[in-house]
Amino acid sequence: MKVSHIEHIGIAVTSIDEAIPYWENVLGLKCYNIEEVADQKVKTAFFMVGQTKIELLESTSPDGSIAKFIDKNNGKGGVHHLAFAVDGIEDALADAESKNVQLIDKTPRAGAEGLTIAFLHPKSTMGVLTELCEDKNKNCK
Amino acid sequence: MKVSHIEHIGIAVTSIDEAIPYWENVLGLKCYNIEEVADQKVKTAFFMVGQTKIELLESTSPDGSIAKFIDKNNGKGGVHHLAFAVDGIEDALADAESKNVQLIDKTPRAGAEGLTIAFLHPKSTMGVLTELCEDKNKNCK
Repeated sequence: MKVSHIEHIGIAVTSIDEAIPYWENVLGLKCYNIEEVADQKVKTAFFMVGQTKIELLESTSPDGSIAKFIDKNNGKGGVHHLAFAVDGIEDALADAESKNVQLIDKTPRAGAEGLTIAFLHPKSTMGVLTELCEDKNKNCK
Repeated sequence: MKVSHIEHIGIAVTSIDEAIPYWENVLGLKCYNIEEVADQKVKTAFFMVGQTKIELLESTSPDGSIAKFIDKNNGKGGVHHLAFAVDGIEDALADAESKNVQLIDKTPRAGAEGLTIAFLHPKSTMGVLTELCEDKNKNCK
């Protein structure tokens, strides 16, 4: 597979409203989008830093994956996943599977910000929940 | 403070030798440097992806911070810290402290790859262990 850059870093937070002031006032980044992804049971907030986005993730349901992550992390937030921009996500998934990587998503699906995404299982990725993503509208810039 | 990009993502691993083949063969990245940082009790391996480095961290001592991270994480690796490139690390640290951020390093110190670094405490950074770094030799490109 061909990875061009880190598209985003997903960070679980207990409250987006409480987290945004830290990212804006201390690190000096600007929140440019807040978006709810209903099927993932999350509310997201985005910041751009260089060529990578920070994606804050707040659970909208106690049974969502972000709520479970925070429960396991003693009620605290933290880095939830890394997302790599690839060119040709279907081929990248097939390539990973051929190398015995366990896939969470066998086929790509729609993610936040209009991206096409798929997750690899952390059992196969050294403990790091890993997302592949492609911006099919922008040729994965 | 002014952050230009994500300089690196620090990832704790139980074994660099076991982790490198995943990053090279599955994600297609190239390990370009392996370096031991004695005072941090770590062996590191670096990969470049876009403008960001992946820094794998293997503990060289059972009482090192990476060994403790892995112990707390049920023996597994995972994302350990995020490092942001700043211009003027002394001013960035003073700025963070003035905004009530708890500092791990009150003054910058030498890190891997010739960078000048300082850590902020995760209690003040929404659970994300955060490093600021500056390449004083390259004007923090």
